[in-house]
Amino acid sequence: MAPETEHPRKAFGWAARDASGVLSPFHFSRRNNGEDDVTLKILYCGICHSDLHSIKNEWGNANYPMVPGHEFTGVVTEVGSNVHKFRVGDKVGVGCMVGSCRSCDSCSDNLENYCPEMISTYNSTYADGTTTYGGYSDTIVVDEHFVVKFPDTLPLDKGAPLLCAGITVYSPMKRFGLDKPGMHLGVVGLGGLGHVAVKFARAMGMKVTVISTSPSKEEEAIEQLGANSFLLSSVPEQMQAAIGTMDGIISTVSAVHAVTPLLLLLKPHGKMIMLGGTLQPFEVQLYPLVLGERILSGSHIGGLKDTQEMIDFAGKHNITADIELVGMEYVNQAMERLARGDVRYRFVIDVANSLVAA
Amino acid sequence: MAPETEHPRKAFGWAARDASGVLSPFHFSRRNNGEDDVTLKILYCGICHSDLHSIKNEWGNANYPMVPGHEFTGVVTEVGSNVHKFRVGDKVGVGCMVGSCRSCDSCSDNLENYCPEMISTYNSTYADGTTTYGGYSDTIVVDEHFVVKFPDTLPLDKGAPLLCAGITVYSPMKRFGLDKPGMHLGVVGLGGLGHVAVKFARAMGMKVTVISTSPSKEEEAIEQLGANSFLLSSVPEQMQAAIGTMDGIISTVSAVHAVTPLLLLLKPHGKMIMLGGTLQPFEVQLYPLVLGERILSGSHIGGLKDTQEMIDFAGKHNITADIELVGMEYVNQAMERLARGDVRYRFVIDVANSLVAA
Repeated sequence: MAPETEHPRKAFGWAARDASGVLSPFHFSRRNNGEDDVTLKILYCGICHSDLHSIKNEWGNANYPMVPGHEFTGVVTEVGSNVHKFRVGDKVGVGCMVGSCRSCDSCSDNLENYCPEMISTYNSTYADGTTTYGGYSDTIVVDEHFVVKFPDTLPLDKGAPLLCAGITVYSPMKRFGLDKPGMHLGVVGLGGLGHVAVKFARAMGMKVTVISTSPSKEEEAIEQLGANSFLLSSVPEQMQAAIGTMDGIISTVSAVHAVTPLLLLLKPHGKMIMLGGTLQPFEVQLYPLVLGERILSGSHIGGLKDTQEMIDFAGKHNITADIELVGMEYVNQAMERLARGDVRYRFVIDVANSLVAA
Repeated sequence: MAPETEHPRKAFGWAARDASGVLSPFHFSRRNNGEDDVTLKILYCGICHSDLHSIKNEWGNANYPMVPGHEFTGVVTEVGSNVHKFRVGDKVGVGCMVGSCRSCDSCSDNLENYCPEMISTYNSTYADGTTTYGGYSDTIVVDEHFVVKFPDTLPLDKGAPLLCAGITVYSPMKRFGLDKPGMHLGVVGLGGLGHVAVKFARAMGMKVTVISTSPSKEEEAIEQLGANSFLLSSVPEQMQAAIGTMDGIISTVSAVHAVTPLLLLLKPHGKMIMLGGTLQPFEVQLYPLVLGERILSGSHIGGLKDTQEMIDFAGKHNITADIELVGMEYVNQAMERLARGDVRYRFVIDVANSLVAA
């Protein structure tokens, strides 16, 4: 059925139509608010690097038309009869998921992000067979389980990226025990994920070293984000001097990169967590794992319980993303700039104001 | 000083003299029994694959003459005034270490195996600067901390390999939580380490699948060792059918091998532990780690507390290595056969009887 008529409620957003990734206005529809559902008026939506991969079909699984957006905030406009957590007028957010089986081991462990039947916020399929459309749009209807409450202290624009970038770094820090005061954390890559990782780790009382290939990131890392030190990974002397000093490393780099020199920075029993999802193989020497029981693992977003905890922590510690707020009409230019790394550190679309104008 | 006179007590064993690795009779000496020391009459010593690497200088750190042997058993013949755990006549064993700093984080955590100042049982240096000589010899003096007690039920010949092969597989199983009844464990490689891994895992109530490149190992794995199933890693259909089924995998293969197909056998949050110490790089796809929070780690022998626990567990569950008992005069032939994998599964030298005859 046509996107505009398959559901009873009108919706409007911007969609990519093919692998060019060019976004343009798109009329579609949303389901009626069910008894477990919350309807949101979407206010702000972050532009994640995944959106760029997805609209250009770089992961080979694109369905068009595609309305991206999986880190957005808004205000509740309607709640179903079974909804207990939310009331009309609440400030809320939605991240990368809008559904999961709710009964598998992962779901039982509050790790809906690893549920084999997890439903992504866009470019995925609801149980009824219709397509999921994301947050580059005016409204959405979501099961309350997949909605998180925003504390009053957390701004909805700068807070939006936390729903993907934030939880993606927060979840492994908590789950791998890399969240203790006095620990030394390395953060590889200073982009959308890396810059919030630095903020969370500092708020947890950790010592943070940013590891980057860009000398220009040193001042940003230390002066603006509060990192304790900076390592230029291309300088062997700097890397050598830091061998065996870190309790954990979070790598936010999504391309293939040299992993062995990073593993060597870990203390015995240290943990390196990869967040990038590339399919290309890495060349890794495994002896640093064997001689010191170091761990190489990975993590993919985070569960809803951890997401709410992360948002509450951010509210308490005034952690937000550094953003550039743009109108929807700017989204194609924003994508071009994102592709060349020209943003500090996250674009956020001023959805409600700019869609009205469209 | 000459090995024969640097210490007051005469000792006799077999040593390699150069990278040919050929072993021959060797007179040297041991220190007097200090107040924290235990003196052993060595009875049985296993031949570990590490011995072969070491005598041929394949790790580039050989000091000759070298008396190998780091999994041996014997009887206590003398104890120091501070020794509390042992009495003359006790049946005991010594593994890969004879010293460590006793104060670092690793030592404090009972993980002397990761102490930066860990002293290996042979080819290493004591605090006084003299060389450590291993268990291919008649006697040794060891700090009691590095000696484990053998239960009466555990034979000293078949039990000797547990002091290296046994603890090397037991320690990661315990430390990574791969020791729970009903869990499914994959064991890669069926040699000295692999065959005892199968026995420990079965005694813990786990389901065990042996993964091997040798079809001939299937019958041994299932009929003789009690594994539940067998996967021929060279057959894609078999590997495909086992995707996502295992809680953990222990890889005992010390050469470079395909890791990604093994990572795919793990359930979400599953753990693969590498025990081989090769310096060559592996080609690994990391997306199985990211999409499912799987862990790739490694482990190197184990601490003394875990070693005693492992020996007690083996005594309780009648776990021993499958061995071929040989005289010291056979050791060079045994090394040749070991190099081509011609042993089921561990050579053990009948030290006391054959050294007397030499």
